[in-house]
Amino acid sequence: MDVRALIEAKRDGRAHSSDDLRALARGAADGSIPDYQLAAWLMAAYLRGLSPQETADLTLAMAESGERLDLTGLPKPWLDKHSTGGVGDKTTLVVLPVLAACGLTVVKMSGRGLGVTGGTIDKLESVPGFRTDLSPEEMKDQAARIGVALTGQTPRLAPADKALYALRDVTGTVASVPLITASVLSKKIAGGAETVVLDVKCGSGGFMHSPAEATALAESLVRVGSLAGLTVRALVTDMDQPLGAAVGNALEVKEALAVLAGSRSARWSGGPTARFRDLCLTLAGQALEAVGRGDRATAEEVLASGAALSKARTWFEAQGADPSVFDREDWLCAPVVVTVPAPASGFLSRLDAREVGEAALGLGAGRATKADTIDPRVGLVLRASVGERVERGEPLIEVHAATTEAAAAVATRLASAVSVSPDPVTPPPLVLSRIEGPRTGG
Amino acid sequence: MDVRALIEAKRDGRAHSSDDLRALARGAADGSIPDYQLAAWLMAAYLRGLSPQETADLTLAMAESGERLDLTGLPKPWLDKHSTGGVGDKTTLVVLPVLAACGLTVVKMSGRGLGVTGGTIDKLESVPGFRTDLSPEEMKDQAARIGVALTGQTPRLAPADKALYALRDVTGTVASVPLITASVLSKKIAGGAETVVLDVKCGSGGFMHSPAEATALAESLVRVGSLAGLTVRALVTDMDQPLGAAVGNALEVKEALAVLAGSRSARWSGGPTARFRDLCLTLAGQALEAVGRGDRATAEEVLASGAALSKARTWFEAQGADPSVFDREDWLCAPVVVTVPAPASGFLSRLDAREVGEAALGLGAGRATKADTIDPRVGLVLRASVGERVERGEPLIEVHAATTEAAAAVATRLASAVSVSPDPVTPPPLVLSRIEGPRTGG
Repeated sequence: MDVRALIEAKRDGRAHSSDDLRALARGAADGSIPDYQLAAWLMAAYLRGLSPQETADLTLAMAESGERLDLTGLPKPWLDKHSTGGVGDKTTLVVLPVLAACGLTVVKMSGRGLGVTGGTIDKLESVPGFRTDLSPEEMKDQAARIGVALTGQTPRLAPADKALYALRDVTGTVASVPLITASVLSKKIAGGAETVVLDVKCGSGGFMHSPAEATALAESLVRVGSLAGLTVRALVTDMDQPLGAAVGNALEVKEALAVLAGSRSARWSGGPTARFRDLCLTLAGQALEAVGRGDRATAEEVLASGAALSKARTWFEAQGADPSVFDREDWLCAPVVVTVPAPASGFLSRLDAREVGEAALGLGAGRATKADTIDPRVGLVLRASVGERVERGEPLIEVHAATTEAAAAVATRLASAVSVSPDPVTPPPLVLSRIEGPRTGG
Repeated sequence: MDVRALIEAKRDGRAHSSDDLRALARGAADGSIPDYQLAAWLMAAYLRGLSPQETADLTLAMAESGERLDLTGLPKPWLDKHSTGGVGDKTTLVVLPVLAACGLTVVKMSGRGLGVTGGTIDKLESVPGFRTDLSPEEMKDQAARIGVALTGQTPRLAPADKALYALRDVTGTVASVPLITASVLSKKIAGGAETVVLDVKCGSGGFMHSPAEATALAESLVRVGSLAGLTVRALVTDMDQPLGAAVGNALEVKEALAVLAGSRSARWSGGPTARFRDLCLTLAGQALEAVGRGDRATAEEVLASGAALSKARTWFEAQGADPSVFDREDWLCAPVVVTVPAPASGFLSRLDAREVGEAALGLGAGRATKADTIDPRVGLVLRASVGERVERGEPLIEVHAATTEAAAAVATRLASAVSVSPDPVTPPPLVLSRIEGPRTGG
């Protein structure tokens, strides 16, 4: 292939054939196309765009650039769920066992967090013993046995995406709707899914800040996913405030397990956790509707019956986790907990997701750069959601920290994340929009 | 420097500061910015453009990225001459000694040829003994002694340009007016020049095919050159037909020396050589006017008096050349010479520069890829210019080849380069336009 001609075509806004894009993905995966040529192509694609058909061709080419998890023999439907990432987003931990308890086969590759965006793999690794390095063979075997399996990214699946993503990160070409679309969907296809439910976050703590941007990405994901042969539904959901009460790795696992258990403990009985639970049920309902296996009520049922909790325990144990995390919350606790009081009485009008995420990052709950290590114990617990009544001096945010100094620094900093209004505040909608593609095969 | 932020700024169409561009050029020169980031920046700059001020800042930054030839102590004005390259363009070989004979200090770095565009260094290397690897010290010393010095590109001068050019070549980012402008002018500034005369070729055998493109480049060169502190004049000249009679390395040197000698030999007395001579005088006249040291008539004088020829001999000898090339033409002769006759009687209406260049390339006079070696003996001699009367069956093109097979193949191929009209044809203008910047310092 003449790579320079390919770059020039995109530079001049001409369309690529599926053969062009297959050659590009293969060259990215096996290293035969030098990084500088891939980087020039990425910038041309960023600025000139890719049509939905080109994006679908690129998606398939990247999915085919390595191994593909073959779920043949496992009960259909084969489902995956993806979030574009936000502060406090631990929906995977609830949605996966709920769907598996409903009889779906759920197989998922998750990523690590960077910046204010936590990664599911980081969260699960806070659970003692939890293995996040399942091989494709182990994934299939486990999914066959219990209907659910989750692993970190493996270089064996969609290696072209890995190569291109690493370059995008350092060449200013991350924020491209077609490139994001192909990256997300190629991993879903390589992972064997036929139906995908997508949660596109919108707001200060998400990757897309405006509803217009988030909707454009959601529409691209649904349209391209459909072209690539997937059944896709996407929700655009609020990320102006964090999702749920917990922000931080072990804390988020504890909140998710509390939702699965239907626990009414003081920490997880407030508005934030109810909001998180609501989104889990909405996402699970969308997945069940997409495959014609029920709806949100079905998801409610397996949660209420304890079937989802039981499935989660089976899942955690299958991946090596210490099952006692289901029975008690006193594991991986931060040594220092201080509370930040509400600054005024009134209605919580702002609890900025980005600022809360940065505070958590400052505690050590996330990575500012890839080389950073995470402290799984630390983080924040929010006591109120936007629109709820707060009283001056009452605890609003718990700061779980490694040291009193870190706790004090973050407590001060959190002041700017919070606004209280004397007048009633309408809670913002949790789901901003829903985009549904046609149902295909699967 | 945050290179990613710099890439993102250009990606989003924001302007760079001169500090940004200095950091970029330094990072390109010393290798501290990885190629993939430079490649992404180049594509962003290609698609978003650079303002004249940014281009001037980049020019100066690249000029300062390595050593700079310091001509202090040498008589002013310090002049350089540059052509964007075309088929049969050997003007440097005449213009340099003419200007040096007029008392100017002429110091020039030249390149090698690629594709149909011959390189001055390749032409001079066909002269036995001619050294094209003078060090900066040797350049200055020779210019001090005889007023003229020419060398191939050295990595010590403008190393950022070398790094960026190599990347542009493989990333589809060559054809950018601002990037071409900075590349050309940075080498002129690093080479010590204060006044530059530019010959922008326009037509099938040049880099710019349309007058609009060529004029845009010429205007950019003059505007940016002025911003960067140079006195600049640019001509846009015809490259739809080759320049002069000879195309090929030793043949072009022979034609240039014939013009310097005022020779009226059969081979170099026709319309093509007269046209080449005309352009040499026009370019030299522009240079002399730019520095207030005369005009075209002054150049005519040193040519007529033999002063330019004498300067050329001194120059060639200073760089190690065998001076007998000034006394006879029977050096480096191709073993096979065949002639291609005119296909019809009438007026030559087309002699396509690109096709003639490709024919010469087919003989071995140029490089299709950088790894190719050149046969200095081979090439073509054209007996007529567009507009001149030709007679069916009379010799129109001499093919100088290494083998009879090569000669026959090229002779056949040349048929498509030639058109003859029964009606008179107006010769196309040699100079299409002239762009002049303000006179600065120097």
